[in-house]
Amino acid sequence: MNHEELFANTAVNSWKLVIGQLNKILASLSDEELQKEVAPGRNRILYLVGHLAAVHDRMFPLLGLGDRLHPELDAPFIENPDRKVAHNLSPGELRGAWTEVNTKLTAAFEALRPEQWLERHTAVSEEDFRKEPHRNRLAVLLSRTNHASFHTGQIRLAK
Amino acid sequence: MNHEELFANTAVNSWKLVIGQLNKILASLSDEELQKEVAPGRNRILYLVGHLAAVHDRMFPLLGLGDRLHPELDAPFIENPDRKVAHNLSPGELRGAWTEVNTKLTAAFEALRPEQWLERHTAVSEEDFRKEPHRNRLAVLLSRTNHASFHTGQIRLAK
Repeated sequence: MNHEELFANTAVNSWKLVIGQLNKILASLSDEELQKEVAPGRNRILYLVGHLAAVHDRMFPLLGLGDRLHPELDAPFIENPDRKVAHNLSPGELRGAWTEVNTKLTAAFEALRPEQWLERHTAVSEEDFRKEPHRNRLAVLLSRTNHASFHTGQIRLAK
Repeated sequence: MNHEELFANTAVNSWKLVIGQLNKILASLSDEELQKEVAPGRNRILYLVGHLAAVHDRMFPLLGLGDRLHPELDAPFIENPDRKVAHNLSPGELRGAWTEVNTKLTAAFEALRPEQWLERHTAVSEEDFRKEPHRNRLAVLLSRTNHASFHTGQIRLAK
């Protein structure tokens, strides 16, 4: 493995470790337990699962990896706080969307060549990217990995 | 900037963003507020500050970047749960240790050449590293960045 491959693999591996850690916690919780708040008056675990699924689903177009799978998650899980918008997604459907998004996303990550991680993401213009080369796919991957860790820490409290 | 520099810079930048996010939260909290639990019966914010300072301090020897600054943090903040071991560190002293460790660590990170991130960390033998080249400094950096995000999510709940 050359240096660029090692850099890219280590970053994708970090993503996989965080997703795996959260999957393990979620697998240990019943659908009823997903209704628990992470702390009194705060988000329910179920909301955070929907939130993370929606944020990760947005990475497909953001990273130029294809179309979204579940745009219907945005209104209840990104644009509004917990309990604000009615939706009829069951805990099982949310678990399914979460798993589907991460599985397909991770496969797309593993198919990228190392140098493609350093290309711009679609939220930055070509002109801005010439001045700010750190606004690349890798920065998005690390940022979303940190974001997933942030909410995993919260979900862990309710476990 | 060449590819290796971009990979390394993006990873160090992700660390700096997470530390900066937590610093901002901590700056907004009074010393009294640091005594709050992140959720009922869970760790106090102050404990998590000591815990993260100790874990980050251990990165100096782990990454071959020098000696530890605050080994006295291990007993109260890593080896034992909150409230188990008496210590006489004031909130101000803990804030100081936290800032000192991260400042010196970040400076050491920024002084590394890109390829040095792919060298082994000191907890893996040369022999094992030949078989497992992903057990490098970068993997530790990303893991600790995720760990800091995990606890930042918890601290954010008490804010």
